[in-house]
Amino acid sequence: MNESIIFEISVQSFKRGLGNLIKILEKAEIHSETKKFPFENLLNARLFPDQFPLTKQIQIACDTAKLCVARITAKDAPVHEDSETTLAELKTRIGSVIQYLETYKAEDFKSVSEIKVSQPRWEGKYLTGFEYLTHHAIPNFYFHITTAYAILRHNGVEIGKKDYLGEMPFKK
Amino acid sequence: MNESIIFEISVQSFKRGLGNLIKILEKAEIHSETKKFPFENLLNARLFPDQFPLTKQIQIACDTAKLCVARITAKDAPVHEDSETTLAELKTRIGSVIQYLETYKAEDFKSVSEIKVSQPRWEGKYLTGFEYLTHHAIPNFYFHITTAYAILRHNGVEIGKKDYLGEMPFKK
Repeated sequence: MNESIIFEISVQSFKRGLGNLIKILEKAEIHSETKKFPFENLLNARLFPDQFPLTKQIQIACDTAKLCVARITAKDAPVHEDSETTLAELKTRIGSVIQYLETYKAEDFKSVSEIKVSQPRWEGKYLTGFEYLTHHAIPNFYFHITTAYAILRHNGVEIGKKDYLGEMPFKK
Repeated sequence: MNESIIFEISVQSFKRGLGNLIKILEKAEIHSETKKFPFENLLNARLFPDQFPLTKQIQIACDTAKLCVARITAKDAPVHEDSETTLAELKTRIGSVIQYLETYKAEDFKSVSEIKVSQPRWEGKYLTGFEYLTHHAIPNFYFHITTAYAILRHNGVEIGKKDYLGEMPFKK
């Protein structure tokens, strides 16, 4: 297992995605100020009555990143209580996960294909760390970031694909 | 560069995502039949007036997968005309991209970190194949699959995260 590739597609990609999410939320904040409505209206917005609202989409994106890197390296992740009710608190939450991701190095991912990831509801079954990363964590992370984006887009926030993808590391 | 990891996070992940997308669209078809409205109403649906509708989200997801594997291996991808107007045609399109992905082997991805990917609108700048995969193609692919999902979810199709993630390769 080439640990520098795993580091890039987990830690580095999650950091970029969460950083871009903060900027998207800041555009949404300007939108709510311009239109003079409380930001909480966006935090409680959803695309269908039985879907999680924006706040929960952000919390799950954070947890997917945090728990993924912890689980595939057999470490313990810090606990977050899901008690955020304001944009400021959500930005703090995202920032704390970015800081946590920054404690990881490529060498932490040496054993990703040997480590077994399981959860109580899986009833004794497991995935390798690499399977958990590729089949679950990566698609799930982008799912919740994109759903957060979609909720804001549906509510008229002027964001585009560039905000979601962020800066590309172009070379000349 | 470990080509088997690159193969797994590109070809294999895109195949899974597109396969899951077909199943989600089949659930949407049953929904439209049960509710007795033309499926085209869903194909033309969007979350905001200046967003691409469902048809285009599916076409871009297909192109992102197809062009990614071609570009990062310096091959030519087959051309699709974006002329689909029915679910049957879109399923054929998705199926043809899955078939195209199946022509790839891990060894095709040996030079991903050396290959330069560029596009006319990048004005001479480039990304390495690996950068293109991780910074652009993977997040973009899940963006369009999730946006397709979000459009259907917003329109009352009963789909959940399990439909999006698909089967996990659990072991005992």
